[in-house]
Amino acid sequence: MTDLSDDVLGRARVRDTAELEAYYRRLEDLEAGALWTIANKIEPWYPRPRSRPMLWRYADLRPLVLEALGLVSGDDAGRRVVALYNPDLRDIAATCGLLYTGLQVMAPGESMTAHRHQASALRFVLEGQGAWTIVDGQKLKVGPRDFAITPNWTWHEHGNEGLEADGAVIWQDGLDIPLVNALDAPFYEVHPDVYQKQDGVTNSSVLTYGAGQLRPVGDPWDKPYSPLTAYPWEPTYEALQNAAKASDGSPYDGIIMEYSNPLTGGSVMPTMSAHMQMLRPGERTMAHRQVGSQIYTAAKGSGHTVIDGVRYDWTEGDIFAIPSWSWHEHANASTSDDACLFSFTDFPVMRSLGFYREEAYADNDGHQAV
Amino acid sequence: MTDLSDDVLGRARVRDTAELEAYYRRLEDLEAGALWTIANKIEPWYPRPRSRPMLWRYADLRPLVLEALGLVSGDDAGRRVVALYNPDLRDIAATCGLLYTGLQVMAPGESMTAHRHQASALRFVLEGQGAWTIVDGQKLKVGPRDFAITPNWTWHEHGNEGLEADGAVIWQDGLDIPLVNALDAPFYEVHPDVYQKQDGVTNSSVLTYGAGQLRPVGDPWDKPYSPLTAYPWEPTYEALQNAAKASDGSPYDGIIMEYSNPLTGGSVMPTMSAHMQMLRPGERTMAHRQVGSQIYTAAKGSGHTVIDGVRYDWTEGDIFAIPSWSWHEHANASTSDDACLFSFTDFPVMRSLGFYREEAYADNDGHQAV
Amino acid sequence: MTDLSDDVLGRARVRDTAELEAYYRRLEDLEAGALWTIANKIEPWYPRPRSRPMLWRYADLRPLVLEALGLVSGDDAGRRVVALYNPDLRDIAATCGLLYTGLQVMAPGESMTAHRHQASALRFVLEGQGAWTIVDGQKLKVGPRDFAITPNWTWHEHGNEGLEADGAVIWQDGLDIPLVNALDAPFYEVHPDVYQKQDGVTNSSVLTYGAGQLRPVGDPWDKPYSPLTAYPWEPTYEALQNAAKASDGSPYDGIIMEYSNPLTGGSVMPTMSAHMQMLRPGERTMAHRQVGSQIYTAAKGSGHTVIDGVRYDWTEGDIFAIPSWSWHEHANASTSDDACLFSFTDFPVMRSLGFYREEAYADNDGHQAV
Amino acid sequence: MTDLSDDVLGRARVRDTAELEAYYRRLEDLEAGALWTIANKIEPWYPRPRSRPMLWRYADLRPLVLEALGLVSGDDAGRRVVALYNPDLRDIAATCGLLYTGLQVMAPGESMTAHRHQASALRFVLEGQGAWTIVDGQKLKVGPRDFAITPNWTWHEHGNEGLEADGAVIWQDGLDIPLVNALDAPFYEVHPDVYQKQDGVTNSSVLTYGAGQLRPVGDPWDKPYSPLTAYPWEPTYEALQNAAKASDGSPYDGIIMEYSNPLTGGSVMPTMSAHMQMLRPGERTMAHRQVGSQIYTAAKGSGHTVIDGVRYDWTEGDIFAIPSWSWHEHANASTSDDACLFSFTDFPVMRSLGFYREEAYADNDGHQAV
Repeated sequence: MTDLSDDVLGRARVRDTAELEAYYRRLEDLEAGALWTIANKIEPWYPRPRSRPMLWRYADLRPLVLEALGLVSGDDAGRRVVALYNPDLRDIAATCGLLYTGLQVMAPGESMTAHRHQASALRFVLEGQGAWTIVDGQKLKVGPRDFAITPNWTWHEHGNEGLEADGAVIWQDGLDIPLVNALDAPFYEVHPDVYQKQDGVTNSSVLTYGAGQLRPVGDPWDKPYSPLTAYPWEPTYEALQNAAKASDGSPYDGIIMEYSNPLTGGSVMPTMSAHMQMLRPGERTMAHRQVGSQIYTAAKGSGHTVIDGVRYDWTEGDIFAIPSWSWHEHANASTSDDACLFSFTDFPVMRSLGFYREEAYADNDGHQAV
Repeated sequence: MTDLSDDVLGRARVRDTAELEAYYRRLEDLEAGALWTIANKIEPWYPRPRSRPMLWRYADLRPLVLEALGLVSGDDAGRRVVALYNPDLRDIAATCGLLYTGLQVMAPGESMTAHRHQASALRFVLEGQGAWTIVDGQKLKVGPRDFAITPNWTWHEHGNEGLEADGAVIWQDGLDIPLVNALDAPFYEVHPDVYQKQDGVTNSSVLTYGAGQLRPVGDPWDKPYSPLTAYPWEPTYEALQNAAKASDGSPYDGIIMEYSNPLTGGSVMPTMSAHMQMLRPGERTMAHRQVGSQIYTAAKGSGHTVIDGVRYDWTEGDIFAIPSWSWHEHANASTSDDACLFSFTDFPVMRSLGFYREEAYADNDGHQAV
Repeated sequence: MTDLSDDVLGRARVRDTAELEAYYRRLEDLEAGALWTIANKIEPWYPRPRSRPMLWRYADLRPLVLEALGLVSGDDAGRRVVALYNPDLRDIAATCGLLYTGLQVMAPGESMTAHRHQASALRFVLEGQGAWTIVDGQKLKVGPRDFAITPNWTWHEHGNEGLEADGAVIWQDGLDIPLVNALDAPFYEVHPDVYQKQDGVTNSSVLTYGAGQLRPVGDPWDKPYSPLTAYPWEPTYEALQNAAKASDGSPYDGIIMEYSNPLTGGSVMPTMSAHMQMLRPGERTMAHRQVGSQIYTAAKGSGHTVIDGVRYDWTEGDIFAIPSWSWHEHANASTSDDACLFSFTDFPVMRSLGFYREEAYADNDGHQAV
Repeated sequence: MTDLSDDVLGRARVRDTAELEAYYRRLEDLEAGALWTIANKIEPWYPRPRSRPMLWRYADLRPLVLEALGLVSGDDAGRRVVALYNPDLRDIAATCGLLYTGLQVMAPGESMTAHRHQASALRFVLEGQGAWTIVDGQKLKVGPRDFAITPNWTWHEHGNEGLEADGAVIWQDGLDIPLVNALDAPFYEVHPDVYQKQDGVTNSSVLTYGAGQLRPVGDPWDKPYSPLTAYPWEPTYEALQNAAKASDGSPYDGIIMEYSNPLTGGSVMPTMSAHMQMLRPGERTMAHRQVGSQIYTAAKGSGHTVIDGVRYDWTEGDIFAIPSWSWHEHANASTSDDACLFSFTDFPVMRSLGFYREEAYADNDGHQAV
């Protein structure tokens, strides 16, 4: 995109003079300043994220993640997580925009203590069979490609009840910690009993709400997030396949479904939405861009995504970041198998605050030059 | 319930006199009247429905319903339906309160013309394999115990594509025609082409929205009813069984789920909600009552329901009516198999208008004397 | 409107035969019937209200209303009200559709006992300076042309604290009793202490919420009706005059404002909305029609309304009824003064249930032939 | 508040070793990091804003603001504004949290060009009689203590039509620019015609919606902000005085009203709310704290506010900032006159995202030690 000129009527274009500079210093003494000196910078023509497009290879990260098992104990680390940082956002521990992601690892038989925080969290399981989490007393077991949520201010702890020595669990955490901090809203508590007691049967949330088109009568749920806290892979993949029979899907995303709160149809939590999308064999989508940050994980298969004109190849477990208002398009590398991408975003924030926009790439049949 | 006396301060208790009667006649000449002469009647202490509790046996109705196949053509009848009338509500064609139900029959190979009306309709299939319906261009195939909706003002037509000579389809219709008429709101149109053209693949609504916890991204649906227009039996029954693992259910209804609009979590249509409930082997619920009319169908198994102190035994296909504010409790006749009840109600109307109430039966351990 | 023919494919057109009549009798024995015998009647092409357009002259009613003061005591009558009945709706005590209105009279110094009911009520004061009402403990004083509400299930009692012997209060009551009864939802209670105690200062609701564009911070109101329970005439009239400076208003209603719930912008109560409209000097509106029942009161000035081709002249205090889907247009008789019409409707019911429609009269420059 | 210790089970407490440091460097090479090294910092026990409590004296700022009239032209500056910066937030041009405020000055006869931006803006007039603004074609005139809004992405331009040479207008701008930028959502456009054309009469928004309890029937407004764009001082002050007759108000804020969207009862814009509060003669409130940033302006009278134990004295025109989760309490300096405080906040953001909390100061009868 060619930049618009700031040297026009309607933009600030005051030239510094000695008199003005003296004036600016007097303003500075009062903890004030002349708006026109920074107006163009703080009101740009369109978003200019500090975040860069990024891709992390699972093949690179995995050995280091597993190595952490021997380096620090879960009790000392709180959570044993390798965080992924956007280079210019290390100061706020952000992966993209005001979103954070990392890879958490738990050894067989291990469990982490319980806490809660204002930030919301989500999990996407990359490997290992024994993972569990207890969220406000409800125990969930999750396996590869399952998606689960830990809504803000819910007590939670995790563990790995796998028995085999090499059965480490690695899952991806997604949190809105940078958002919570940017808004000066963080709170944190350690559980008074260090560990929660389990209420009811395991997976009760999935058993009760897992058929989202059927709602328990008389259900008193009134919280601002989904009562369904885990979304197993199998019905999710089946839903994508079914939808593909009935629809061409999105020109930009193939067949794409949002994990939703079955009691409202809205996003699973007020600050983050999550999606699973399927690129059919040979599918290559067209480019578009949205206001909001997106963090993607290759869940199945291989392919590539072009972000602002640069191609990023991905295969299972790779994680990549699409900054706000960046052009992006996806392609499945296989002509025989589908490929699936998990993603989470801050679109619910953008929608709540009235900031959401999207735009299709108009030129070149909808494809960026790479 | 013992009636409260009207002979108290706070109720109307004017005695007629010759002078008053002359006054009343003068009011009548002006199309007016003295409110106190009818105040107690129109403001009773609690609901006094004109509807009576009723049960219709499928074994009685079925032969007559099938007989209609030979008596009238679908084209002449519009719809070949045996309507069920509450004895005092024949004038408004109501089954219970302002709800209507009937049994519709279609011969193999038959199809009905397309129309639309302000009234909302729902279907619950009792027998036959070949049933289909086209709702606003979308074709759905439905089988026994499937539930489907025809929201208000959607074009719809039905048929039976079964091939076997004895393969008649019988389904139950539920409509809010008496409600629409009571509110002077009916409209009706015959489709300009007599029959619709099918859009897209069969069952596209189920394929697209049938996993209610997953929402198609970018879906433009903005209508006041569910985009999911059919709810097959198998996932419904599975959801009941799953919920039974996680919950004790309702003391009044066992395990009960509402068919819901996955995009809002609300009722399938603005005026009617529908439910499937499961009574576990040997289960006998406690009595309660609600403001609203309920029409039940025995979907699986046998049992009985006590309504205002009278026992009604039911088996598959039987239909019974529970008037507003009538005590009711259910029992499964089997100690080895579950029993399932389908029901539809006008509770959404009661909730929208602020009329909904419910009350548990306090005496006798929650059970009515029969 | 010319009626459409029922003798077309898509409507029921079965002719009776001896065989069918025998069949019908067998259905009748089972409390059932053949839908096709009544289908066209219960599914008409468009609304056919039992209500007729009506107008009651205040000059006729007022003497009879005042006469009631000497005929019955308030304590015996409960409320001393002359009810206005649509001729064919006497059985359900309705004025138009499922709405009711009447004129209530209270002598100076008189007060009525407290009760509550499921039906919602509203008041529009026609004459007298001393009227008051206590709604859930809050006392309101209301004068001519003021509008007040008594939402469903709120305790309420009324009185007239006027001191002059000829200072009777006459106000118009509007209630949804027929609606509540049609839905089998009525409840009624006499206040356990016969009279309420006043909480807080008089008119506290108006003092607190009367500037609807300013909302008390931290207000815990969560009821489904307006916390503002009285809308005085002066600011209402001023708002109409202001709006007339900024807008041409509605081609069908002139300058028209809905009394609204300032916490939601919605109707004052879930089942009834109320409006005040101003016809500017010489204004004559165009005709339209809506689904819903409307009861009008001439609040200021004189004019006429044409309803379904019949002209009804009105002057202050006259009340008229516009049935659902009836064409109507208004005219101010004065070329120098404005005229104001108060009205209440069941449009919120129609909107909640998805029944609302409106249509402009297309022919003859928008005016009906009279 | 005493800080909680991080040296507990449930917090990160890994000690650096040479081996770990080598590990951290390898992570760094992959644009990753060990979460436990920063976990306690990014998940603090409670909010630790970078913003400090601040107060700017109008007596200090006013001469400098007026001086700008002679230093830069409006056309060159875009807007001639002295911005108020929190010392540690100069890099993001924020006054408190993610909110910005500044003082804008316009000479008599001057007008500014039209633009629009994603950020929302509000205005509170401090002095001058000739101020006007055109928002999406609607012209508003505003005077001292009037409040007005410029919702996100509306075209707007301003001017001063005062005629007297010393009649400069100074108003306070409030914007959410830092919020929009933190979320990578800014957009900006210069109006294609440089200046808008006025639609309709001046102040049409106030004339049409200014009595918030009355809603224009048939109004098609569907935007996510208030259609009422100006709130004059007189009815606001009258509403505060009326509310004071009916209520004791808030123990923390005296009589406080939120400027609200009359069509929804919600905040005027999705990201900022604004309030006017009145401290009665001699009133001293108790302390509380909230999640969210608040910027206050002394609108009438004098007094002081204690923020986190430090007293800030204010008089008309002074502006002060209360960071998130900072204790604060107010006092009116006069025992004979009321004092009024205008404020705006990002509470709507906190509420939309589920971050809002508030807490009363429990000790010392609710008052901080100063």
